[in-house]
Amino acid sequence: MTRPPRTRTTVRRLPDKQVLDRSALDAVLDAALVVHVAVADETGQPFVLPLGFARDRDRLIVHGSTASRTFRLLAAGAPSCATATIVDGVVVARSQFESSYRYRSAMVLGTFEALHGNAKREALALLGARLLPGIDGRRPPSDQEVAATAVLALPLDEWSVKIAAGDPEDNPADLDRPVWAGVIPLQHVWGEPIDAPDLLGGHTAPAAVLGWPQGRA
Amino acid sequence: MTRPPRTRTTVRRLPDKQVLDRSALDAVLDAALVVHVAVADETGQPFVLPLGFARDRDRLIVHGSTASRTFRLLAAGAPSCATATIVDGVVVARSQFESSYRYRSAMVLGTFEALHGNAKREALALLGARLLPGIDGRRPPSDQEVAATAVLALPLDEWSVKIAAGDPEDNPADLDRPVWAGVIPLQHVWGEPIDAPDLLGGHTAPAAVLGWPQGRA
Repeated sequence: MTRPPRTRTTVRRLPDKQVLDRSALDAVLDAALVVHVAVADETGQPFVLPLGFARDRDRLIVHGSTASRTFRLLAAGAPSCATATIVDGVVVARSQFESSYRYRSAMVLGTFEALHGNAKREALALLGARLLPGIDGRRPPSDQEVAATAVLALPLDEWSVKIAAGDPEDNPADLDRPVWAGVIPLQHVWGEPIDAPDLLGGHTAPAAVLGWPQGRA
Repeated sequence: MTRPPRTRTTVRRLPDKQVLDRSALDAVLDAALVVHVAVADETGQPFVLPLGFARDRDRLIVHGSTASRTFRLLAAGAPSCATATIVDGVVVARSQFESSYRYRSAMVLGTFEALHGNAKREALALLGARLLPGIDGRRPPSDQEVAATAVLALPLDEWSVKIAAGDPEDNPADLDRPVWAGVIPLQHVWGEPIDAPDLLGGHTAPAAVLGWPQGRA
């Protein structure tokens, strides 16, 4: 599925990095552990919050405290932008100008909607499954915890994706400069589970953790 | 150095995670490879751009294309927010509600200023040294490349830092739940340098790359 180009999310800078395929959006969002969500207050001052999130088919789900001013602005329908970015390496070109990052980035524009009732509980369950994949047995949120949590959904309607996965692209005139050029990859790797200091009963980390997909960040 | 509390950057949610020491701000900014910068357009729609950046003492330096609409808004003095976040792991509590991330995050509010002339060239040189530490010999930007690049500085005046480096903090009533609890660390590791396909002359990656500090992301 390819989305039609939109004016506000048409990539103007480095347009060759833009990917229009919806599956690329899903892949970036499913790999990212946080999304940076912006909303402006009544003075026009934007705030950018890093939020854990989950993609639920055609929408992005975030949660936070109902007491958060930013969440109240979002829930009230203020225009927002959510951007998720993973840096995959440093591209070392012969010129400083062409040096850059390898990265995957997705930007979504739109308005969040607050979820309530069953929809809210289902979204919280999905967040738990997404943020702790394969880790079962957590105590589900109590009524009080659900009430203290704002759960918001942003439709994946207006979006753009940029992926830079390539090699240095130097000007031909720079190619014989007597220096190295290439990529220093940045790997994001899950480490050995660390037991909680107050762990009881000799429980060990779920085997699912060992199979968590790498490359998330 | 500890900054005085400010209303707009006083952490209201999970205030025990707030760190007021200026050295903590510097450490987070110096570890982060990208900063998510927000600015709103004339309709109030915010945009969040991931940008490579460098800290230069008491300011944050970003660069981008002079043709970028977002950079023009920033250079015109629109209020902005720059947030840098590194996820260091997943905290698996006995309850879903207390499960979360280990992370380091810094937020800076303020107004960018466009740099020109020598200040612009010096800031570009600093960006190069910061983004490619120990990698010398790149061709410096030409006059044309400098002219095509917008270089902006944001003072580190109004800011907040949140660091979550701890263990699960479950309610006492949840502690004997028969499940594992702990932390899955997320490590950010530089990999083996990859030669550019068009590399000439048998140059090898600078040794400095092997000493790049880990934990950046």
